[in-house]
Amino acid sequence: MKFSLGPNGYGKAETRLVRVEREGVRHTITDLNVSTKLSGDLAATHLTGDNSGVLPTDSQKNTVYAFARRFGIGEIELFATTLASHFVASQEQIHKARVAIDAYSWDRIGDHSFAKAGGEIRSAVATVTADGAWVTGGLRGLTLMNTTDSEFHGFPRDEFTTLKETSERILATDVAATWRFGTLDVDWGPAFALIRESLISAFVETHSLSLQQTLYAMGTRVLEKVPEVAEVRLTLPNKHHFLVDLAPFGLDNPDEVYFAADRPYGLIEGSVLRDGAPDEGLAWSS
Amino acid sequence: MKFSLGPNGYGKAETRLVRVEREGVRHTITDLNVSTKLSGDLAATHLTGDNSGVLPTDSQKNTVYAFARRFGIGEIELFATTLASHFVASQEQIHKARVAIDAYSWDRIGDHSFAKAGGEIRSAVATVTADGAWVTGGLRGLTLMNTTDSEFHGFPRDEFTTLKETSERILATDVAATWRFGTLDVDWGPAFALIRESLISAFVETHSLSLQQTLYAMGTRVLEKVPEVAEVRLTLPNKHHFLVDLAPFGLDNPDEVYFAADRPYGLIEGSVLRDGAPDEGLAWSS
Amino acid sequence: MKFSLGPNGYGKAETRLVRVEREGVRHTITDLNVSTKLSGDLAATHLTGDNSGVLPTDSQKNTVYAFARRFGIGEIELFATTLASHFVASQEQIHKARVAIDAYSWDRIGDHSFAKAGGEIRSAVATVTADGAWVTGGLRGLTLMNTTDSEFHGFPRDEFTTLKETSERILATDVAATWRFGTLDVDWGPAFALIRESLISAFVETHSLSLQQTLYAMGTRVLEKVPEVAEVRLTLPNKHHFLVDLAPFGLDNPDEVYFAADRPYGLIEGSVLRDGAPDEGLAWSS
Amino acid sequence: MKFSLGPNGYGKAETRLVRVEREGVRHTITDLNVSTKLSGDLAATHLTGDNSGVLPTDSQKNTVYAFARRFGIGEIELFATTLASHFVASQEQIHKARVAIDAYSWDRIGDHSFAKAGGEIRSAVATVTADGAWVTGGLRGLTLMNTTDSEFHGFPRDEFTTLKETSERILATDVAATWRFGTLDVDWGPAFALIRESLISAFVETHSLSLQQTLYAMGTRVLEKVPEVAEVRLTLPNKHHFLVDLAPFGLDNPDEVYFAADRPYGLIEGSVLRDGAPDEGLAWSS
Repeated sequence: MKFSLGPNGYGKAETRLVRVEREGVRHTITDLNVSTKLSGDLAATHLTGDNSGVLPTDSQKNTVYAFARRFGIGEIELFATTLASHFVASQEQIHKARVAIDAYSWDRIGDHSFAKAGGEIRSAVATVTADGAWVTGGLRGLTLMNTTDSEFHGFPRDEFTTLKETSERILATDVAATWRFGTLDVDWGPAFALIRESLISAFVETHSLSLQQTLYAMGTRVLEKVPEVAEVRLTLPNKHHFLVDLAPFGLDNPDEVYFAADRPYGLIEGSVLRDGAPDEGLAWSS
Repeated sequence: MKFSLGPNGYGKAETRLVRVEREGVRHTITDLNVSTKLSGDLAATHLTGDNSGVLPTDSQKNTVYAFARRFGIGEIELFATTLASHFVASQEQIHKARVAIDAYSWDRIGDHSFAKAGGEIRSAVATVTADGAWVTGGLRGLTLMNTTDSEFHGFPRDEFTTLKETSERILATDVAATWRFGTLDVDWGPAFALIRESLISAFVETHSLSLQQTLYAMGTRVLEKVPEVAEVRLTLPNKHHFLVDLAPFGLDNPDEVYFAADRPYGLIEGSVLRDGAPDEGLAWSS
Repeated sequence: MKFSLGPNGYGKAETRLVRVEREGVRHTITDLNVSTKLSGDLAATHLTGDNSGVLPTDSQKNTVYAFARRFGIGEIELFATTLASHFVASQEQIHKARVAIDAYSWDRIGDHSFAKAGGEIRSAVATVTADGAWVTGGLRGLTLMNTTDSEFHGFPRDEFTTLKETSERILATDVAATWRFGTLDVDWGPAFALIRESLISAFVETHSLSLQQTLYAMGTRVLEKVPEVAEVRLTLPNKHHFLVDLAPFGLDNPDEVYFAADRPYGLIEGSVLRDGAPDEGLAWSS
Repeated sequence: MKFSLGPNGYGKAETRLVRVEREGVRHTITDLNVSTKLSGDLAATHLTGDNSGVLPTDSQKNTVYAFARRFGIGEIELFATTLASHFVASQEQIHKARVAIDAYSWDRIGDHSFAKAGGEIRSAVATVTADGAWVTGGLRGLTLMNTTDSEFHGFPRDEFTTLKETSERILATDVAATWRFGTLDVDWGPAFALIRESLISAFVETHSLSLQQTLYAMGTRVLEKVPEVAEVRLTLPNKHHFLVDLAPFGLDNPDEVYFAADRPYGLIEGSVLRDGAPDEGLAWSS
């Protein structure tokens, strides 16, 4: 009976970094949550506790802060790539680095005053090895609702099906999207803005016969608008809003009063790919 | 040895109500979380399980939905008062009702499409008895940051004090505010907007020597701008941002790179009152 | 138009303290979350930013750690009282201190190994002024369920009542209890154990006609068993478990298969007092 | 420019099921959170909204409840497999089903009374296609601490390394483990108990030179004790406990008083495989 070490990695998760740029009285802030993960020749520490190849997670955290000062931050896709490249280049036993960054946005309310913009988070993941670099972007916490133009019918009915067909329902979801870039030659900020706008406009403009149809429309819209994106992955909970039965109280309910349910919820997941796009490589590897 | 039943109440918490108004193609939504609590001659159910005075919490939930259809919703301060008044008026054994409502806001992104506006929540509490009605408003989840104009020095030093005095720090907080109205003759929507704007502008404009000073400025600003408000209560966590020591890496850090800490945090609480305002009565009673 | 500073206080919230006692190979741990709050002559910092009476919250945190080393911790009711007394005694402008402590429990799984015991939290609050000291204890996160011996009927029916009467339902709740001691001459550890046991046994043994009846039984049980307790306050959510209608699938459901709902939930709150107990003083003041 | 639908699936997430077995006065409860996900010939609903292959998520929820009544539940690994097999067998267009179950445990405190056992969750995932079935088990929320026998030294030092070497530190982690069975011929309940015991005993008994070493010891211990397990995957946060510097207060701190930090935290992930075990197939596919 013998055992082997399988895939492994280690790092520092959730380093909270806030950077203030002070150009005269007008300041700019960047608010990030950075997680690093390194992989490579790490069998020794697992098997014998020999740490000669284990750059401390504390050093990884320090690197995040030091790089923010030395090089600034810029777009998170680039900052993640810079950090990941550094670890692979500087640590002999580290062959792969994955840096994931969440960015919280703030609205300006004064020259040096800001209000946090809400629950939506922009994210990026860079994976770097000697062979190359792969970058994905993403967003989550974007909650959208259409109050009409959503139907659901024509589905199969088995012995456990009691759901009524409907041609009028609320469609609400928390968008969690990630996308893989087919190139690193991207103008990251504008690309993010256009992807986000594409996701939203496709949600708004799609007359939906199923949340799957909306998902596919959102993914294709991104691919149409942003040629650098090779693939879009979407996770869309169907946040059910049930029409309340008011008949016992002598009231009708013409699609007006709803109960917003917590659990269970539908969950629709899917990916849309650009034909002929580069292979995914390590873009999604965790 | 004898025991007595002390203050008590019961109700239905967190009834999630979404109402859609459909005026032609242009829809409007209201998204609420409603909690009701009733008090009165309720000793029997506690002592013997005699429920003859206990209007079910299920009925309270139904009332919330039925009233939303029958009367619409309007401003939450008013909807809370209407509901609370109904319970006191219709249930002989109920002498006091407290209805608390949280409202989630959504941004319009189309005629019938909406995006949730973030973590900020508007709230209202109405307390009604035979003797009168009291209304408070509130907001929470409003996260603000000033990147300068905040100092902290001149404090006493005891044997456990190691903190350095500073004339330059980040001031960040999650505003949780409640305010008591001295009258029910209020234009609720505009009042809320003006209160919110006052809290924000006072935060932005105050050169702060302590978070307490900022708190007091925020409270007084509301009282100055909105005469119907009798009292403002504020709970302001001091969300610490610590300057990272980059000297070990040969780098200076001219108020640029910060670690945003989770716990512990300072917590500043206080109330500002209008002189000569009506007594608080049951406004704050829970 | 003039404004006044109302009740106020400030402190350090959620100082996370873990203490290890190393008596030979056998270790003991204490895992706490400590929050301090000081009040007194604090108008100056609010009105002008004069901090000469504002002991930094950082010093309060340091005090928590230093006292844990200097005096040990012992029972949390006592540690809270010791800390609160220190602040009032040592800071001229501080007239009232409130120290709240949450304790997380761990099970021993070895001489120096421990497993966290779950979601239940023991708590204590000490409030100290020149006039005296008041102590409350508490627990929360204790989730209990009875699968029978719970009924609900005999309630009034208004126009919004559709609930059916039942003589068989699941009764489940998350117990949140606080209790006020009428004396400081208490053997805190055994008292806590007995109070907890009393809450549980009363829940188990009460054939419940309403959750209010169960609440009252839990409160009186504590007062019966622990003479030092003057008052018990309970907050009991009614965690609804709805019997699933399986008839559409040709199945009966003899009180067997339930849907555990999230929101809304019933919420029952009440207090039970010992007749002739000392006045509450500042025990509950926040 | 053409786009393709990539991997996709849909289902009902977080169906909360509580089952009560009533054998005389002595009851037994099962408390589950069930999530189903179906994949197959689902292009039509994505591309055109044709739902003729889309068994409603509502029906999936109903199936969970109906199966709990019709067949009982038993061990979650088996209940997940039964449900997944049903969907593949009964829905022509569904070629793959994945059912994930979380189980919450309760301690018996009476014949029909229970107390929730804490934050630890047992889990199982069954993936079924026409080609076979794959089952994984898991647990999470098991928080462990060793107060000694943990060291960390011998690591490389780069320009960003300031961490001191230590031969005495607290090692604390939240265990999140999943394991893949190499067979379906398993006595699921005892296997789970033995796996859990193995994870804990290896944590307790390993003198740790790195958390990686502890991770590997935990994985191999499971493989040694439970021959049906082919692979163990572990995610172990390093929950940092920092010794507080009490020197400014004239106090030493002989490994006694610690600050339990929230973020950032180390994060160690790894897998241990049995040599010659069956291929993973679709066991881990999500």
